[in-house]
Amino acid sequence: MPAVTYELIHRDRHTGARAGILHTPHGDILTPVFMPVGTQATVKAMSSPELKEIGAQIILGNTYHLFLRPGAETIRKAGGLHRFMSWDRPILTDSGGFQVFSFADRKNIDERGVTFKSHVDGSDKFLGPEESIGVQTALGSDIMMAFDECVPYGADYEYTAQSMERTIRWLDRSMSAQTREDQSLFGIVQGGFYEDLRKRSLEETTARDLDGYAIGGISVGEPHEEFLRILRLTTPLLPENKPRYNMGIGTPDYLFESVEAGIDMCDCVLPTRVARNGQALTHHGKMNLRNARFREDFTALDPECDCPTCTHYTRAYLRHLISVSEILGARLLTLHNLYFLIHMMQEMREAILRDEFLEYKETFLERYFGIASEKN
Amino acid sequence: MPAVTYELIHRDRHTGARAGILHTPHGDILTPVFMPVGTQATVKAMSSPELKEIGAQIILGNTYHLFLRPGAETIRKAGGLHRFMSWDRPILTDSGGFQVFSFADRKNIDERGVTFKSHVDGSDKFLGPEESIGVQTALGSDIMMAFDECVPYGADYEYTAQSMERTIRWLDRSMSAQTREDQSLFGIVQGGFYEDLRKRSLEETTARDLDGYAIGGISVGEPHEEFLRILRLTTPLLPENKPRYNMGIGTPDYLFESVEAGIDMCDCVLPTRVARNGQALTHHGKMNLRNARFREDFTALDPECDCPTCTHYTRAYLRHLISVSEILGARLLTLHNLYFLIHMMQEMREAILRDEFLEYKETFLERYFGIASEKN
Repeated sequence: MPAVTYELIHRDRHTGARAGILHTPHGDILTPVFMPVGTQATVKAMSSPELKEIGAQIILGNTYHLFLRPGAETIRKAGGLHRFMSWDRPILTDSGGFQVFSFADRKNIDERGVTFKSHVDGSDKFLGPEESIGVQTALGSDIMMAFDECVPYGADYEYTAQSMERTIRWLDRSMSAQTREDQSLFGIVQGGFYEDLRKRSLEETTARDLDGYAIGGISVGEPHEEFLRILRLTTPLLPENKPRYNMGIGTPDYLFESVEAGIDMCDCVLPTRVARNGQALTHHGKMNLRNARFREDFTALDPECDCPTCTHYTRAYLRHLISVSEILGARLLTLHNLYFLIHMMQEMREAILRDEFLEYKETFLERYFGIASEKN
Repeated sequence: MPAVTYELIHRDRHTGARAGILHTPHGDILTPVFMPVGTQATVKAMSSPELKEIGAQIILGNTYHLFLRPGAETIRKAGGLHRFMSWDRPILTDSGGFQVFSFADRKNIDERGVTFKSHVDGSDKFLGPEESIGVQTALGSDIMMAFDECVPYGADYEYTAQSMERTIRWLDRSMSAQTREDQSLFGIVQGGFYEDLRKRSLEETTARDLDGYAIGGISVGEPHEEFLRILRLTTPLLPENKPRYNMGIGTPDYLFESVEAGIDMCDCVLPTRVARNGQALTHHGKMNLRNARFREDFTALDPECDCPTCTHYTRAYLRHLISVSEILGARLLTLHNLYFLIHMMQEMREAILRDEFLEYKETFLERYFGIASEKN
């Protein structure tokens, strides 16, 4: 019995969108689901009770960051990441690859893995499939991700092909390194923006008996059409009886497109990162609270939102907090932005169950990108 | 009927300590009480519901900071400080004097008030009794403080005497500037560390019919004995039927001494400020979470504390958060430090009601300054 299993509840009659339940060792997750990112054993500015209060069902942990600080061994001794950070719902950990490649010269990638310099102290570090799974095993996440290379947008065909083939070999080594029965391993489809490479990666990855499958490297600064092309090519070919995860997706339009194509899980730092910079996601588009026009705007941040921030505080107050760099400003906007995306995904699920996904999508995005919004 | 009245419940049989109730337009406050400081319309890193959860009965707002940003007029339009920051319990505002004098050359003080440069944009600003009360009126605090000069430790006799006399004249102007019946005004006893000046200030201040009296300028970097000398000289001479407030007191030993002398209210930025720097106040003294010895210490921050931080998190986790500068680290330590002092004051009150104040004080301070603590 796999640690994590997917139960299909309903498929939308008009699109590929589906509503399901992900059963995990730390409880069930209603899908589609947005997963907040808890990079350093904390979703930035949030507490665990707050995350529960706004409906977060699962959060991410970043293997790269936790590998460097406080170190896998410390978290293992603490009883795993759930206990260390006091979060008793499911956790998904990435493989560390994505961050490693940001800090490594790609010349330092070889068959074994990647040598890189720690961004903390500049010391030499190494991460390969065995090391990544070793760290994730110590963290004790419900879902581990296989070690992969995510190639940047614009990578040439030859590099992308070689990298994709190596990612498949790394997948086999990731699978061999898995030791715990209470953890599931997901494979990641790569192949850049080349259709034949994506198909080859997909065939090889899904030929392995894994508990779930992810699509990596399709939201890496590409034009919107390129994202859609690879998303729509890949998603329908993933097994129907397994969860499907589109990595690094956090804007409303990309989330709608992902779910429409048949994706169950998405994550992104976007809602938390932009919050700390004073930006709110609202039903009428993005809102920059640093803007002087909110100085004496005593309406709720987003009058259509039921989150604690919108229930208790005005735009003028939030603008004040952001202007004077108060921690509470980052907190209240982070709380709202996460609630906004989590709630949007819940409403997508309800629309799927009613076979009205497209209507919900159109209504939502029309308002989000309407003339009153600040597109950026 | 004054906006704020004091009801004496019980006087400790062996000391000057007293338990009472402060009745205010925003509810009752059980005294003695510790008041968290919410400088810029937020107690740093805390939300209003959290402050209630840990038992905060009243918070401070800083007139100087709010005068500069977002400005008194903005808060007046918002419906006052309570509504602006979504805090429905009592608020006390200081006069702004203390901060102004930190930024002003004392040559810029004259009979009218103080000219100073804004720390925000360097522009010239002016604050005198009428301006201070004007701002506090717009903020709508339950308790306003009269505009005063707090002289630094070491100020000579002549300067201190002149300043004290001017503070009395400013008190009369502060009283004349008061317009709202739902706000109380407290006067402040000054006079540095000169007993005759303190007595003169006390006689003049208490000769005015005010709703409460504060002692200012006795915790300004002086030796401990000097603090005690002026505290013990001044407090017993304050009217018994009015609340007594010792300004800027936040270390456990100074809080115990203040309450023992007969003080009802204290405030300080210490618990919130040191928290953001990684320091916790515990039953066994101060604890610096940056210390490497907490790396794999999986015990609660303070095993004898019932606050949410100590209930859910370990020293190792808090050390990790502080080490990597996560906002949650500042939040959790702030929450604990405030709970620690608020709870300590509640226990002082209970001890007073049992006539056991001295026993509680001795037990507490013996552990706090015990051999296991890091005195600093």
